[in-house]
Order: sequence, then C-alpha cells, then structure tokens
Amino acid sequence: MTNETIECDLESYRTEELDSLLKQLQPRILDYISKADPSRDEYQEDSLGRYHSPQFLKKEFTDDAKLQSGIRKHPQEVFEVIDKVLEYSVNTWNPGFLDKLYASNNPIGVVSDIILSVLNTNSHVYTVSPVLSVLENYIGKKYAGLFFKDHQETCGGLTFSGGSWSNITSLQMARAMKYPDTKIEGNNGRRFAIYSSKHCHYSVEKAAILLGLGSGSLFKVDILEDGTMDVASLKQAIKKSKSEGYIPLYVNATAGTTVFGSYDPFGEIAAVAKEHNLWFHIDGSWGGNVIFSPTHSAKLKGSELADSITVNPHKMLGVPTTCSFLLVPHVVDFQNAMSLSAPYLFHGRENESEENFDLADGTMGCGRRADSFKFYMAWIYFGQNGFAKRVDHAFDIAKRFVDLISADKRFELVLGSPENPPPCLQVCFYFRPSHWTNEDHSEVTRYISRELHKQGKYLVDFSPNPQPGQEKKGEFFRVVFNSPILTDKVVADLVKSIVEIGQDYGQKE
Amino acid sequence: MTNETIECDLESYRTEELDSLLKQLQPRILDYISKADPSRDEYQEDSLGRYHSPQFLKKEFTDDAKLQSGIRKHPQEVFEVIDKVLEYSVNTWNPGFLDKLYASNNPIGVVSDIILSVLNTNSHVYTVSPVLSVLENYIGKKYAGLFFKDHQETCGGLTFSGGSWSNITSLQMARAMKYPDTKIEGNNGRRFAIYSSKHCHYSVEKAAILLGLGSGSLFKVDILEDGTMDVASLKQAIKKSKSEGYIPLYVNATAGTTVFGSYDPFGEIAAVAKEHNLWFHIDGSWGGNVIFSPTHSAKLKGSELADSITVNPHKMLGVPTTCSFLLVPHVVDFQNAMSLSAPYLFHGRENESEENFDLADGTMGCGRRADSFKFYMAWIYFGQNGFAKRVDHAFDIAKRFVDLISADKRFELVLGSPENPPPCLQVCFYFRPSHWTNEDHSEVTRYISRELHKQGKYLVDFSPNPQPGQEKKGEFFRVVFNSPILTDKVVADLVKSIVEIGQDYGQKE
Repeated sequence: MTNETIECDLESYRTEELDSLLKQLQPRILDYISKADPSRDEYQEDSLGRYHSPQFLKKEFTDDAKLQSGIRKHPQEVFEVIDKVLEYSVNTWNPGFLDKLYASNNPIGVVSDIILSVLNTNSHVYTVSPVLSVLENYIGKKYAGLFFKDHQETCGGLTFSGGSWSNITSLQMARAMKYPDTKIEGNNGRRFAIYSSKHCHYSVEKAAILLGLGSGSLFKVDILEDGTMDVASLKQAIKKSKSEGYIPLYVNATAGTTVFGSYDPFGEIAAVAKEHNLWFHIDGSWGGNVIFSPTHSAKLKGSELADSITVNPHKMLGVPTTCSFLLVPHVVDFQNAMSLSAPYLFHGRENESEENFDLADGTMGCGRRADSFKFYMAWIYFGQNGFAKRVDHAFDIAKRFVDLISADKRFELVLGSPENPPPCLQVCFYFRPSHWTNEDHSEVTRYISRELHKQGKYLVDFSPNPQPGQEKKGEFFRVVFNSPILTDKVVADLVKSIVEIGQDYGQKE
Repeated sequence: MTNETIECDLESYRTEELDSLLKQLQPRILDYISKADPSRDEYQEDSLGRYHSPQFLKKEFTDDAKLQSGIRKHPQEVFEVIDKVLEYSVNTWNPGFLDKLYASNNPIGVVSDIILSVLNTNSHVYTVSPVLSVLENYIGKKYAGLFFKDHQETCGGLTFSGGSWSNITSLQMARAMKYPDTKIEGNNGRRFAIYSSKHCHYSVEKAAILLGLGSGSLFKVDILEDGTMDVASLKQAIKKSKSEGYIPLYVNATAGTTVFGSYDPFGEIAAVAKEHNLWFHIDGSWGGNVIFSPTHSAKLKGSELADSITVNPHKMLGVPTTCSFLLVPHVVDFQNAMSLSAPYLFHGRENESEENFDLADGTMGCGRRADSFKFYMAWIYFGQNGFAKRVDHAFDIAKRFVDLISADKRFELVLGSPENPPPCLQVCFYFRPSHWTNEDHSEVTRYISRELHKQGKYLVDFSPNPQPGQEKKGEFFRVVFNSPILTDKVVADLVKSIVEIGQDYGQKE
C-alpha cells in the first residue's frame, strides 16, 4: 500500500514547542545569571553553589521511571529537571569561581552556542557546512597569523575538542611529517623519544601512550626555580635518549604551565629542536592567548619558531567550552599528516595551494561541532582590542591579589612577588594561620578550600608543591584570575574570607 | 596602590545584554525553523538553501575590519552577521535534508544545548561538574545496559567528540587491556594486526595510523553481496596476518555501514574473536540505536558479546551533534586503559568497584563538553517508547521510498527489494532516465543531485559503488531517511522531483 499516510507526532509542532520551551527557559537563565552578578539586586552571595555528594545527586536525578515513557507532554516535569540541574551545578557566572583555567560564559557565547545548536551543522564536509567551514579556515588563519608572522599566507588552524586532543594531533603531525612511512608502517620498531618539562600538562604523556610510543618514551626535563624548562637538562635528555637507542622526534614547550603558569624559553628550545631535527610544539592551551595583549605578548617570544601551537579560546578568552585550536605555519600539513589520500587527489583539489574546505580530512576524526564559530563570534564582537583589554584586566586583578597577600605575613607566595609577579593569571600561595606551627600546610589549605566552597561563595583549587625539595611544605592554593567580571572588591573579599576561615581553623574543636 | 578600583566593562550588564540579545535572536530562530516546516504557513519550499561557492562566502563573511575594534556596541551589526550565517547555511530543519546520517535538531535538543552553554561546565572533574558527571555515568550505564544485558552491574559508557574518537578510544582500550605494558613501552616492535570489513568507516584506518600501528596493519576483510563481513575471509585474514608475523589484536564489526547500512554477523565474529584473543569492537555509530526498537533490534543479535560498542545518539536519535558514546561491559576498563595512575590510587578510590566521577581520567583527553547531557534530556523527554517510535517511523519511511521506486522501472535498487528492504535507513539506488544508455550512471546521478540542491529543496548524497565488479555502473544515490519530520508526502515528492529532473537531463542542450 503506497497510499497510506505515514506520519510521526514526535516532532510535530516544532516551532510552537520550541517557542513555548524557550519562553519558560529564558527567565530561568536570566535569573541564574543575575543572582551570580554582584552588581544586581538579585545577587546571592552563595550562588556559586555548595558541595553535594555523588550519592545525593544520584538520588535526586536518576529516576528510571522517567526513561520509560517520557515527559514531553508534561512541560512542568521538564522544568523541574532543568531547575534541579541549575540548582545543583556549579554556577560559573559567580565571580567566586576561581578554580580552573576557564570561568563563565558570556552573552555572545550563549548566542553562538544557540546558533550552533539550531544549525546542527556537522563541519566535516563543505556541502553540509558551507558557512562554518569557511569561517573556521578564516579565523584559524587569522589566529595563526598572530603567532606565525612570517607565514601569513600559508598558516592556519583547526579546532579539536580540547587542548589534549590538539596536543595529541600535533604529535601525530610531527610523526607523519618527519617519518611519512609511519602512516602505513606504524612505528615499526622505531623508538621515538619526546621531551617535555616536568611541569607540562598530562596530555603530553597521554599522547605518547595513544600514539603507541608509550609513557617511557617521554623524557621529562627538569625545571628551573621559576617553573620554566631547564634547556641544559633538555640537551642532556636528548643525549641520554639517543644513547639508549631512541630517535628524537618532538619537544613540547609550555606557554603557561598548569600549576605555575610559567612560559618556557621558546627561542632556546627552538634552537635545540632545529639542531636535533625535533618537531617543536608549544602547548599554549592556557597561556597562548596573551598574544592578544601588547603588554604581555612578549612572554611568547620565540613562539614564532614553533612547528605547531595549541591555544584554547575557551580558557583566557572566555569562549564557551570547549574551543581549542591547533595552529600551524603550513596549514596544508593537516592533510599531509592526516588524510588517507594524498592531498592532491582529494576531492578534486588540483594542487596544494588550493584551500581545503572538507575540514575532517585534516583531522583524525570525522563528524565535528564547529567550535571555531564561537571564537569567530567572540572575536568580531569584542574585537582584538577587547581581547587585549580582557587579558590585561585579568593580569591587573592577579597583581592586585599578589599585592594584598604580600602585605600580610600569614600569606606566602610560592612563586613571584609584588615586584616580579607570577608569570600568568594564577597565584600559588600558602596561608599560615597565626597559631599554625606544622611544616606541612595541606591540612589547613584543604580546610579553607572546603569551607569556602561550603559557603557557596568561592571555589579555589589546591595543588601539591611540584618543586623539588618543597614537597614537605604540602599543598598550596592555586587561585586563577581569569574573567572580566572580577573586580578589586572580589579580590579583597577573597583575601578577607581566607583569613577569617584560616584563623578559625582548629579553634572551635 | 591597593585601593584603586579595578573594573572592566567587557561583561558589565551581562543580564541585560543577554536578555536583549535573546529577545532579538528568538524570533529569528523561530522564523528559521518555521520556514522549513511543511506544516506551517511560513513554509518555503527552497528553505534548505542553495549551493554557494567558498569564494562567494569568503567575500560575504571575512571582513578584517570587524576583527579590530569589535561590534559589541552595535547590536544591529551582530544580527547582520547572524542573519547571513542562517541564510547561507544548510537549513537542516527542512525535511529535504537527506544527505547524511544525521538530520535536524529538535526543541529539547536546542534547550539542552542552551543549558550546557549557560552552565559552561567542563565535565573533567567532579568538583566543577557534579550534576553532569553523575548524569553521564547514569545514562551511560543505562545505555550500555541495553546492549550488555548480562553485565548490568558493571557496564557503562562515556562520550567522545564523535564516532571516530570513540572508535579510536576502543582501539586504545584493546591494546592497553590485552597488552598493558604498551602503556609504558609503546608498541615496542610488536606488529599488531586489526581487522575490519572493506565497507567499514574510515576511522578504523585512521585509528590504526594514530595508534602507531599504521594503515598497513589493517587487514580489510571481504564482504558478501549484502555488504556484511564475510567471516570466512576474516579467518583467512587472521591466518595471513599471523603468517606475516603480526599479532592479532582487534576486530571491528559494523552495525550499519556508512554506505549500505549493513549489519555484520556479530555472533560469528565474536566466536572468531574469542578463538584468536581479539578485542571485539562494534562500530554502531549509525545503526546501533535500533536497540531501542523491539521491531528492529534483532539486527544487533550477538552484539552483547562485544568488548566495546560505539553508538551515536546524534545520528538515528536526533540528539544535537556531536553526541557519541563508547559503551563497555566493564566501565572500570576506561580507567584501567586510560588513566596515568593505577585506578586504585586515583583520587582516593579505594577499590575498583567504587564509581569514578572524575570522568576525564577514563579518557585520553582532559577538558570535555558534557555531550551526554543532551542524550539524557532527550531520553527522559521522549522516553524509551519515543525512541522506539522514532526508529520505527524512519524504517517505515525508508520502506515507503523503496516501494515507490520499485514500482518505476527507471529506478534500480543497489541493495534490497520491497520484500527484503535495505538493512538500515539509507536507500541506495540508480535512476536511469528513459533516454539514458550509458553503463556509467555517475553523470546523471551527479546532475540530479546538483539540480535538487539548486532548487533549495533536497540535499541527497551519492557514492561510488563499493561492490566488486559493480564499479563500471558508477555513482549511485544514497538517500538517508532519519527523522520524525519525514512523511509519505515528502517521500512521494522526492521521487517525483528525481524523475522530473532526471528525464530533463540532456534534453535541453
């Protein structure tokens, strides 16, 4: 019977349904944001949210009955779920969210995400993703051009779903470009060595594992007191690895290490890389975006010599998570390293200078969300000047915090001083209550961090001391200042809160 | 001076700004959707959008001046950009989008994306992502439980940013679980062999390259006429690889191949895998979601024997891109295979049975967007019954299309018949205009596909014939029916449009 009607009611009345959902959602979102905003009447000091155990949340959210027949016909139930998700999640719009290397979203970020969602574009091939593919190439090239000033014509960038995946891709690129036969033959008995400082992000080690090199192929290089790579130690590591039969392949330098925020000496590392035929990658996931600030971009001196750079707009620039770029001086290398076909054969491209718009071909993936669009929108919205202002403001805020705690003897900076501030936007420090006598600070650090969270006011992270010889001092605070919503008032109140809680520690029991 | 005010105006008035942007955005979105909806007065037949060249779009969008100072203070300019993005993108809400294995978003999908955006949660560690981490574990376990019925207590799943990345992760899991020393030593001279059918997705080959095995380690297994893996050929491939010194590691079977939609014989493959100590992975990115349909789930018989399964809710279930799960019978394997620390040492977990909520530890990445939340919301919204209905409707629509074209001799099905419909939701066929005499159909196929796109009405894909001996017939249509918005009317009109354009071909010149 080819005349019978076939219809489905699951998505009938789409327009009305979305309209109705959005009408109910919008006031909730605005309420959620305004209660986290100190400049608003609706502001609630504890809106960051308190700690809840996984067991508690499981009970609240995991109702198997809902999975059976669905709640589409019961809008009230939909919003009960949404309200609970908002209530028990960490409200990152609160300026007290200082825990990680990213912070809140912002209005244009939300708008960009909505457009991505409505388009539901998969930016793998041009046919289905014409606009977003063109924009990714455009903004990737502009971004890369800030770093690779001598390669304006050939440079470019693509997004990957986080800094780790960008770093992983850079190692694949290194192997495929230096040893093209590995695409077919694999490592094939070769033992490649890679190098990175002891303070680098864990993704370098994970990349070594994923690519079949193994964590043993990662030679961890010593750091100097300021958290930067000791280039003499790098040279020794290369020598050592060679003597053990390894083939030196890749060195990762970091622009803004995870704990200290240190910038490795890129120029010196580039020279070593050149001498030993190493691919020179920079993991600038965190600190790379100082490129936008004329005041602070000198930290990146030498980065123009890199073979690839990871930079995450979702960190220092406040683009919604996740948005991570891998930037290279020669954009054609994405396909040279990643495509299954030779680039000149692929999709009718006649020569390497022709631009590729089937973006997945230059990655190890296929389907992809166009994270680049969020960065494009943020860039045209705030402008290069706006990004500069954002970065400079964050450094000013971090400096203010350093000044404040340096004036109180109970605080001790792990790195830096008012005259010579920490290299990036995180401040690492101990707080020692006046009655505190232990050498190991872990207990009091954890206590203060936990109590701040209990108040629903501040979320701040802590870390073991990674400096050799400093282990005995225990865990310190690592507080990240990384948002235009931070003001001198927030910083002053944070210092006050730490002192109050810290002085109180152990006094009541 | 620690008294000076430090403020930044980039994100002041966030609430008002977002409110104002949303007010202007909302009618645009509703307009965008309603003009793609045949049931609405606003419906525009050509709303899918026409083809535009990259050169044209570059001119339209890439205005360097905007990048300098920003347009934040000029809302009019913001919406000029947004309007152009919507205008020139492919409108996937139009039922004529039949080109890929995913289609449009839907209202609850848009809502889920908005919540993810507002939360700006990074689901790497529990502290910052309490709710979304609990929900990912919950829904991952429910999802895995549908497949691994004998492992309800231990099974689970995590999301990766697309089916390729899930597949890549499964190969890493295989290597780390079968040969744990590879985490430290790498492949270390071992030549691992992996097996997959000639019709599998390209990500299997890319995984082999990325993991340092090389594309040469992938032994491509012959297929039978129906596009399924020839298990006799698999056995031969294993024998051959062994004789060449390879160590058999991993077999990938496909549930819903990319071109034909075929389901490999999982039970037989499982037996071979067991005999040869192979990790048995199923790439069900496309076809795995028939698990929700009591009518069609038998296609997955034997999948319960797999060691890992990739399934993408962003394909057959209409969850917004990207949403891909890797499901396993033993969720603890994510950490066993991926963590840098032994699981029992990590974050205070005392034994393996304790649930992990620091999700990044079970992946090769770090920062991650909680794609799982979109699936959770869709599941509770539509319910398991709704998903079943969705899948069944899509099969009914595909069947109708098969019936219609089978009644017209100018059409030729590449696979299947009205009595024995194609295995999944794509229909592969030739159209031969009555005046057509060439053996090779590529020219007329491409012409019709292009003209349909030019009308802004249908986007349909085509493919070379992957069957041995069929190459000479050239490219055929591969049309994917995969959405509740498809009706018998759309299908009838598509057939009519193909006939009209096809008959017209070559007649005017």
